[in-house]
Amino acid sequence: MKKRNLPLSKVYTLIETGPVVLLTTADKNRANVMTLAWHTMLDFEPPLIGCVVSEQNYSYKALLKTRACVLNIPTRELGKAVAGCGNTSGRDSDKFAAFGLTPKPAKRVPAPLIDECYASLECKVVDTRMARRYNFLVLEVVKAWIDPDCKDPKTLHHRGCDAFMVAGKTITLPSKMK
Amino acid sequence: MKKRNLPLSKVYTLIETGPVVLLTTADKNRANVMTLAWHTMLDFEPPLIGCVVSEQNYSYKALLKTRACVLNIPTRELGKAVAGCGNTSGRDSDKFAAFGLTPKPAKRVPAPLIDECYASLECKVVDTRMARRYNFLVLEVVKAWIDPDCKDPKTLHHRGCDAFMVAGKTITLPSKMK
Repeated sequence: MKKRNLPLSKVYTLIETGPVVLLTTADKNRANVMTLAWHTMLDFEPPLIGCVVSEQNYSYKALLKTRACVLNIPTRELGKAVAGCGNTSGRDSDKFAAFGLTPKPAKRVPAPLIDECYASLECKVVDTRMARRYNFLVLEVVKAWIDPDCKDPKTLHHRGCDAFMVAGKTITLPSKMK
Repeated sequence: MKKRNLPLSKVYTLIETGPVVLLTTADKNRANVMTLAWHTMLDFEPPLIGCVVSEQNYSYKALLKTRACVLNIPTRELGKAVAGCGNTSGRDSDKFAAFGLTPKPAKRVPAPLIDECYASLECKVVDTRMARRYNFLVLEVVKAWIDPDCKDPKTLHHRGCDAFMVAGKTITLPSKMK
């Protein structure tokens, strides 16, 4: 998928809707991917994102060691991969191969972009002080990519267990909200 | 709207999709409401929710003083109120009256439920240590309400400025994700 640079000031528009994301890491050239639904914007620019990653996740160790990851945003077509990456562990399998995901080199971090995702955010881990109490990590987005042809992304939004809401249409309301 | 109790263990299914919420507070019997899009689940049970509320928000003072609020989840029909509450300040106006929202007494906190919202979460502020650096507050949900007739809520999800994604259909994927 051909992606272009997205200005960092626009990153919040992708995240504040609450999409499920695929978080990639890479340690010693071995990449991994996990599904993540608990995250929030914390600041606009530089974009800060808070996310909950448990020590029990295999990705945790690589995330803390490399202090870097990529948040890739999948759409409806990738539903099986999203569920599959949430059901399995990188301890046991190469999830990229298992779910047909293509890793591509990022610019600023060792973790890969997922080619099939319409947007990818290269992130550095900038604050781990809330990791122990809440499994909460603060990420700074240092480079953002988007498919310019994807105007109305059918992102997935977890509703618990096996239920996922698919993004509907976008409307405009007279808002001064940023 | 007639709402029933929602088990606290199910609260995450409402929040992890990323809906815009209407946060109510009450200080000296004066209630206020603000629109909030930056939040995340932090734990299942008791349900913990992290949210970003700035000192610049008029609600901030009452929130910190009473250490309590209600997160009310609006649907499509309340779009004008959602945008309106985001565009105005409780300093200048009674937003309940201005946007046709009906406050109802909560059980465990002084802040009101919004009758027109299909779900309402009564919350206590349990951790303010990240307030200074990230405007990030940790809430514990102590009582949850839901309209049992609202099976497929058309929640609103902010895409920046005046754009809001309306929740589409819910699909099932073979997931072991909680």
